[in-house]
Amino acid sequence: MIKYPTMKKVTEYSKSRNRDTANQGMALEDMINKTNEYYLQHDIAFINKRPTSIKVIKTSDKYKISEAVFLAPSTLDYVGICDGHYLDFEAKETASKKGFPKNNIALHQINAMKAIIKQKGITFAIIFLRAFNEIYLLDGQVLIEEYNNNKTIIPYEDIKQFGTLIKEGYFTPVDYIKVVKEKYFER
Amino acid sequence: MIKYPTMKKVTEYSKSRNRDTANQGMALEDMINKTNEYYLQHDIAFINKRPTSIKVIKTSDKYKISEAVFLAPSTLDYVGICDGHYLDFEAKETASKKGFPKNNIALHQINAMKAIIKQKGITFAIIFLRAFNEIYLLDGQVLIEEYNNNKTIIPYEDIKQFGTLIKEGYFTPVDYIKVVKEKYFER
Repeated sequence: MIKYPTMKKVTEYSKSRNRDTANQGMALEDMINKTNEYYLQHDIAFINKRPTSIKVIKTSDKYKISEAVFLAPSTLDYVGICDGHYLDFEAKETASKKGFPKNNIALHQINAMKAIIKQKGITFAIIFLRAFNEIYLLDGQVLIEEYNNNKTIIPYEDIKQFGTLIKEGYFTPVDYIKVVKEKYFER
Repeated sequence: MIKYPTMKKVTEYSKSRNRDTANQGMALEDMINKTNEYYLQHDIAFINKRPTSIKVIKTSDKYKISEAVFLAPSTLDYVGICDGHYLDFEAKETASKKGFPKNNIALHQINAMKAIIKQKGITFAIIFLRAFNEIYLLDGQVLIEEYNNNKTIIPYEDIKQFGTLIKEGYFTPVDYIKVVKEKYFER
């Protein structure tokens, strides 16, 4: 079944010492976009959100679209480069207290991750667990293995054990490059 | 001035021994997309077109957009990975017999190329000169230098001298990875 992108809901989340209250209520996507702007301005990394895939059917003038349909994407949310390393990742959030529901992962995303790993790229998911106010980086290979088991959820315990908590930087709501460098660049 | 994406015109081009007649009349974008599909299926590279950047204003149902506007992109047309190397490039075509008119290059594209070079990525333009039925790969650094001089065109002679002719593969209308490997991977 093809999963079409839908508008992401922003839900309130509880206070925590881990994350600043300034970014409360912000969608994960907005936090990552803000972080990427800072990375670009400070020559830390060049990472961009892939636009939503659509097919334009009718335009009303040069700038306006009067009819279009969403297309099924075959790629992940973000792609870019940091110090010669290719990064390609998905951003996901959930309100679940049990972990990350696997019906939020589409087969095309798993296939994209497999293709990236084959080409020696770095691929992962950034998972925002709103119930715990925690954001984790979960490696693509771990995600592929979890996807293939028979559970309906990636348990919170697994995310804690195999993932890495992403802290908030002073100017970066989700300072994931810090984790990427520790996890992948030191090899 | 913001340049908005417009529909690309497909113009007929003259016969040549360099390129097969089978792909005549095909837009450069379609040729690259077909090539990328082959690369993916044969584990040669994972390269994708970035969708056109739009802002959805109104949706009529889950799958349909009834109002949207084009946004100014801040990135290049294609991005991907080949054997650990980050590739990010623009695809351009022209009917000019003099070379490549520089008003086809936007400042945001030059800035993107500079950011990619800073992060040690590979960036270039694939330029289809329809008048000669030739497709060239022109390195990003060369393009930045040409952009900054006071000519209105990148002369055909410069493209021939500094660029590399991309041949047609048996299953790949624009076999650019072959050129990329020779030009960038051997260093």
